[in-house]
Amino acid sequence: MKKFFDKHWKARIYKIIYHSDTPAGKLFDVVLLVVIIASILLVMLESVNSIDLEYHDLLNTAEWIITILFTIEYILRIVTNSSPKKYILSFYGIIDLLSTIPKYLSLFLVGSHSLIALRALRLMRVFRILKLARFMGESNNFIKALKASKVKISVFVSFVIILCVILGTVMYLIESGQESGFTSIPRSVYWAIVTLTTVGYGDIAPVTPLGQLIASMIMIIGYGIIAVPTGIVSAEFASQKNEFKKEEDLIPETKTCPECLTNDIRVEAKYCYVCGAEIA
Amino acid sequence: MKKFFDKHWKARIYKIIYHSDTPAGKLFDVVLLVVIIASILLVMLESVNSIDLEYHDLLNTAEWIITILFTIEYILRIVTNSSPKKYILSFYGIIDLLSTIPKYLSLFLVGSHSLIALRALRLMRVFRILKLARFMGESNNFIKALKASKVKISVFVSFVIILCVILGTVMYLIESGQESGFTSIPRSVYWAIVTLTTVGYGDIAPVTPLGQLIASMIMIIGYGIIAVPTGIVSAEFASQKNEFKKEEDLIPETKTCPECLTNDIRVEAKYCYVCGAEIA
Amino acid sequence: MKKFFDKHWKARIYKIIYHSDTPAGKLFDVVLLVVIIASILLVMLESVNSIDLEYHDLLNTAEWIITILFTIEYILRIVTNSSPKKYILSFYGIIDLLSTIPKYLSLFLVGSHSLIALRALRLMRVFRILKLARFMGESNNFIKALKASKVKISVFVSFVIILCVILGTVMYLIESGQESGFTSIPRSVYWAIVTLTTVGYGDIAPVTPLGQLIASMIMIIGYGIIAVPTGIVSAEFASQKNEFKKEEDLIPETKTCPECLTNDIRVEAKYCYVCGAEIA
Amino acid sequence: MKKFFDKHWKARIYKIIYHSDTPAGKLFDVVLLVVIIASILLVMLESVNSIDLEYHDLLNTAEWIITILFTIEYILRIVTNSSPKKYILSFYGIIDLLSTIPKYLSLFLVGSHSLIALRALRLMRVFRILKLARFMGESNNFIKALKASKVKISVFVSFVIILCVILGTVMYLIESGQESGFTSIPRSVYWAIVTLTTVGYGDIAPVTPLGQLIASMIMIIGYGIIAVPTGIVSAEFASQKNEFKKEEDLIPETKTCPECLTNDIRVEAKYCYVCGAEIA
Repeated sequence: MKKFFDKHWKARIYKIIYHSDTPAGKLFDVVLLVVIIASILLVMLESVNSIDLEYHDLLNTAEWIITILFTIEYILRIVTNSSPKKYILSFYGIIDLLSTIPKYLSLFLVGSHSLIALRALRLMRVFRILKLARFMGESNNFIKALKASKVKISVFVSFVIILCVILGTVMYLIESGQESGFTSIPRSVYWAIVTLTTVGYGDIAPVTPLGQLIASMIMIIGYGIIAVPTGIVSAEFASQKNEFKKEEDLIPETKTCPECLTNDIRVEAKYCYVCGAEIA
Repeated sequence: MKKFFDKHWKARIYKIIYHSDTPAGKLFDVVLLVVIIASILLVMLESVNSIDLEYHDLLNTAEWIITILFTIEYILRIVTNSSPKKYILSFYGIIDLLSTIPKYLSLFLVGSHSLIALRALRLMRVFRILKLARFMGESNNFIKALKASKVKISVFVSFVIILCVILGTVMYLIESGQESGFTSIPRSVYWAIVTLTTVGYGDIAPVTPLGQLIASMIMIIGYGIIAVPTGIVSAEFASQKNEFKKEEDLIPETKTCPECLTNDIRVEAKYCYVCGAEIA
Repeated sequence: MKKFFDKHWKARIYKIIYHSDTPAGKLFDVVLLVVIIASILLVMLESVNSIDLEYHDLLNTAEWIITILFTIEYILRIVTNSSPKKYILSFYGIIDLLSTIPKYLSLFLVGSHSLIALRALRLMRVFRILKLARFMGESNNFIKALKASKVKISVFVSFVIILCVILGTVMYLIESGQESGFTSIPRSVYWAIVTLTTVGYGDIAPVTPLGQLIASMIMIIGYGIIAVPTGIVSAEFASQKNEFKKEEDLIPETKTCPECLTNDIRVEAKYCYVCGAEIA
Repeated sequence: MKKFFDKHWKARIYKIIYHSDTPAGKLFDVVLLVVIIASILLVMLESVNSIDLEYHDLLNTAEWIITILFTIEYILRIVTNSSPKKYILSFYGIIDLLSTIPKYLSLFLVGSHSLIALRALRLMRVFRILKLARFMGESNNFIKALKASKVKISVFVSFVIILCVILGTVMYLIESGQESGFTSIPRSVYWAIVTLTTVGYGDIAPVTPLGQLIASMIMIIGYGIIAVPTGIVSAEFASQKNEFKKEEDLIPETKTCPECLTNDIRVEAKYCYVCGAEIA
């Protein structure tokens, strides 16, 4: 009797924590999201020196409360799950552990406290929660379109990286003697990426005329080839949209004539437009 | 008799101020637009120290004239409106008040004068005026396309923000010991947004090799995923264009039944699909 | 007799200068293009102090040669043209004059020499020359697509400018007390444009947390709404492509049956697919 | 007998080196790719001063090993090829030589060692290897789409460059008296490219109000016209996708004539359009 009750209790908790199709499950998800966001804001505030100096005790207390909440959630997830190992070793299981443990570690190990920032990874649970909710359809289309253009995008990214390695090396040969920050090839490649992606920090910038000429070429290339991934994804989205519409357009709009077998008769037609036969 | 006249007078002013389909209404809109732009140029000039020092009195006089014009407009809008409360509490009503009141406040409260810059918000009335004019069709298509992709764009923006929070936190862990400006997590997240959106101020820039490697990854991600919103909106615009064209295309492809006057019969049909009458 | 010869001579020169469909006309265009580019490189080199100091006499001589060549061309264009006034007052006529006169002016007026840089405007003649040559078809499609989306793009650009004015003013209110460069509203608006367009110089950058939060929002907006003009132009190009293809697809592919008047019969068909009548 | 064996041996090596459709050929390609990437990482590490100081001997030894491997490969490529001259003078032949020779040169010529960075050019072999592998289809579509929009993109790039020359010159006239870095026209043109492509280093930035106004215009132009190449490539990709799909779509919509075996007859046809035979 006791065992049955336990199992029942576990199953109920399991449903609340892992599913979100019940009111309690939805409430749990929302509360969890709020606590996660609060925990991240807390870590952020703590990292600002002036705030930490003034409100250290308050922030510390709040963090312990959240850590304990996360600990309870973690234990419940393990206890109620029929295959705890699978959860513990899963992507979200590891993140959940990593976002709980640093606070406990900070009691024994000085310096380990900053690891608490790993808690930001819990934000990824947002996708989990959203996935189970109303954005599901949208995300699915997203993922489908991205998957369809995966190979193309990989080719494009490899191309960009190889281009940056080659151009960064060339720039190192040209600018390395100057005071312009091209002190090593990795730094030059970093600069090439900063330039090609049109970010342009300006911490490293060419000073020789030849260097500026090549930099100009890199910029124009970067400005131009952004069109390639955009074109790929646009075509993918457009084609998906068309397909969806075509399916919608075709299926409900035609029926077949019983006499002449013309098969593209409108659903609202009473007579076949080829042979004039009456259609039920 | 007096009352009737008053009502009449109010209705006429109301039509001029709130509608733009009469010549007087159009003139009012144009004058209002010119005064709004003049008032904003005035606030701009005043904010430039060197100009303010030389022409302070001139600028101050001009501002009082505009403030009084705005006050008259505001009072007229309230008086002529049959439901003044609705206008006062509406979006544009609040903006109109906020752009008039700071000048009066500056007589009593020192320092409140700079609030006059809120007048820039009145620029939003441009959309109002344009909406009522010839751009209406265009804006409608705009808004339709943007509405259709609203959910997708929200998902995308959330994804970008979450990515920036996570990557900013990771960069804080890596770079916080250095002299590179990653002094707190919020600042690091700010840097991640600056980098991912390819703005790249350069006031904060990574100096450690690992930091630069992750920064490169963020840049390439930012450079690549710009394709996603672009693809969404492109597909939306293209689909809208197609739909519009399809409607246009269908028209010449149909003929009308001489018996039942059904007007969307295919050109190749021999019999009406509604009444079965033979068609020449 | 003399007169006739003169007229003949003028007509021949006119054809060479103004048209490019004869071998001599093509040669003239190519030579002109080379001289224009040479003249611009010359102006560029002269503006570099270190080069100007060393080769001043050489550059000066070369510039006089080019100025005289341009003068001859300018005079010929006037003399051979039947309506010289129209040419002199045309866009290219004014540019041709502006690129010739500064060198002469520099003999009398000290300091007017730098105006020679206006010669860069002659580069626009490239479009003229290209337009008359093989790129014509391409440019036409370009211009057609851009014209079709002119209104939409105007709406978009106005929206961007208004947004920058409003956001720049808001940032001025927030950051003006700080040492971050937001010294006046025009400068703040300039900064908003630098940020929204994702250029990001970094000469002005927010330092207050609230300023950085709003800056982040501006960046994400700028990063997102780039999709709008891209979407408009993509849809325009795609629709043009489709139309072009549809025309190609439809016209040569159908003919009408003389018996039953079915009008979508393939050109290669010998018999009508509806009534079986033989088709010539 | 000896000669035949030699030829046989050469042919086998040739097949391994030049083709990748045999297991040995594939293995060779993978090993080559790994060695190329290792050699580039080596050059990168060596260019970092702190690493070079500590591990100079280790890096030098590793580099000699790779140089010898490359030398063996280069000799084999010449020996086994039936037309060695063609290989030596080909694009990849020159790159292979350039990436091998600097190490030998560094024995005689001091300072020539840095040329070893040319080895990065060997990365281009990646495309070669990938081309022969599974990405072939994707790359083909890529290249087809890019080729189709080649002329359009050339026109666009010329337009961007001419715009930058003109705007850069104008900015030089405005800003050259200031301390803002516009010291010569080439530098100003460089700045215009940096700004138009939205890279925005900030090493050169306008300080005069007029300069900032024009800079703002350049930014908005640059922000807007990015839509043009994107639109071109998007339309190209979309059209390619459609064509592919149309071909697919047509297949199930036809039936075959029982008399003349014409196989692209429409499903709704009653008579064959080639021979006029009635179709069930």
